[in-house]
Amino acid sequence: MLKRYRIDLSYDGTNYAGWQIQPNAITIQQLVEQSIGELTGHTPKVHGSGRTDQGVHARRQVAHFDLNRDVLPMTLKNGLNAKLPPDIRVLSAHRVDLSFHARKSVTEKEYRYFIWNSGIMPPFKRYYWTHIRSHLNCVAMRHAASILEGTHDFTSFSANAKRQVDNAVRTLRRFSVCKRGSAITIIAAGDGFLYRMVRSLAGFLIKVGEGKLASEDASRILASRERTAIVQTAAPNGLFLWNVRYD
Amino acid sequence: MLKRYRIDLSYDGTNYAGWQIQPNAITIQQLVEQSIGELTGHTPKVHGSGRTDQGVHARRQVAHFDLNRDVLPMTLKNGLNAKLPPDIRVLSAHRVDLSFHARKSVTEKEYRYFIWNSGIMPPFKRYYWTHIRSHLNCVAMRHAASILEGTHDFTSFSANAKRQVDNAVRTLRRFSVCKRGSAITIIAAGDGFLYRMVRSLAGFLIKVGEGKLASEDASRILASRERTAIVQTAAPNGLFLWNVRYD
Repeated sequence: MLKRYRIDLSYDGTNYAGWQIQPNAITIQQLVEQSIGELTGHTPKVHGSGRTDQGVHARRQVAHFDLNRDVLPMTLKNGLNAKLPPDIRVLSAHRVDLSFHARKSVTEKEYRYFIWNSGIMPPFKRYYWTHIRSHLNCVAMRHAASILEGTHDFTSFSANAKRQVDNAVRTLRRFSVCKRGSAITIIAAGDGFLYRMVRSLAGFLIKVGEGKLASEDASRILASRERTAIVQTAAPNGLFLWNVRYD
Repeated sequence: MLKRYRIDLSYDGTNYAGWQIQPNAITIQQLVEQSIGELTGHTPKVHGSGRTDQGVHARRQVAHFDLNRDVLPMTLKNGLNAKLPPDIRVLSAHRVDLSFHARKSVTEKEYRYFIWNSGIMPPFKRYYWTHIRSHLNCVAMRHAASILEGTHDFTSFSANAKRQVDNAVRTLRRFSVCKRGSAITIIAAGDGFLYRMVRSLAGFLIKVGEGKLASEDASRILASRERTAIVQTAAPNGLFLWNVRYD
């Protein structure tokens, strides 16, 4: 009988071509599948809560997979951590019901985008923060975020969304901008995200912060339901999949 | 006429063989000297406040050098940051009096040693924290630190100290252990430090925290004035030169 396991992972995406397996590049999904194979003698398909792009990090990513034998969750966690490189860690492992699906059962995902807004980028933050030298107006960014919060068709803030989804309506339950000294954090939580949606939203907010776009442009861009060059995708290294929630 | 410049630097020591120039290895001093040479046409000797070992970081290192021409400090700062790799940053540049000496004028140096005391090392901390899995007793570590604080002959807590210095008496003005969740921070501030002294002190405190040595062993080891295998040098990646103070 199949047993289903859930693992919660944290990874530094700097050295990987993202989560999803692809030819001629090392991905996190691939290393996790390989490690499970080495540990249990069976290499399952590992289902993540969603993809993360090249260079994007995960404070917490959730995945599930099935095995046809019993493994103690603690053995799984410790065994995987012994096999995986130090930039990928298994935070926890659990036996779950076969009804649990890492992607389909998600009730909320939260992303955080970190911007270091100062002349000099501290060396220790260089892989985890996006560096913006010019002063960002956080009041304008917050106003733009408040317009984008809520339920909208986010086609204009995704890449190739039309080709990928029939329905681009998503609910951004929280979209906020916090500033503390030189550190600006964008928090985006919602029921689901389109491809590159968070980085597109972050790219738009950065342009608003720089004064190149107005907060009110948010409404116009949303309404156009078409991706244009006005919206740029912010750099991947500032983005973290922060949390994935289930019922 | 010679003009003296002071630069304050921050660097991630992960990819370097330390501060000091040496053959067949890339060091921070070397890259800074080269960059000044490329920028000004003259490659001076750069004097740091002290060395940092391979893999040791600096939140703030201070250095000085002389040029026989006037350069605007702002030009120096921006020019060096454009030439140096992103893991070495110039935080500030100033013209200083010829009486200023980055090493000889130091009144206090502060180091911090970061320990992540938990079963799993978060991927994002792996270059900047030392991972200790077994639970450390911070009460015992604090007690040992209080014994070591003050003025002592620190020969037992240095490497090759006898060969290097005539006088191994130093004053540890502050030697403290702070714990917040899984994060343990050792702060060591004083008038000067012997070779590998902070890492030797940290290695001793870790053994005390693990219960392998008693706090009171601090007095005995100090009094022996001899380095023994009991005192181990803690890993370099947890160590930061945190601040250098001048009058």
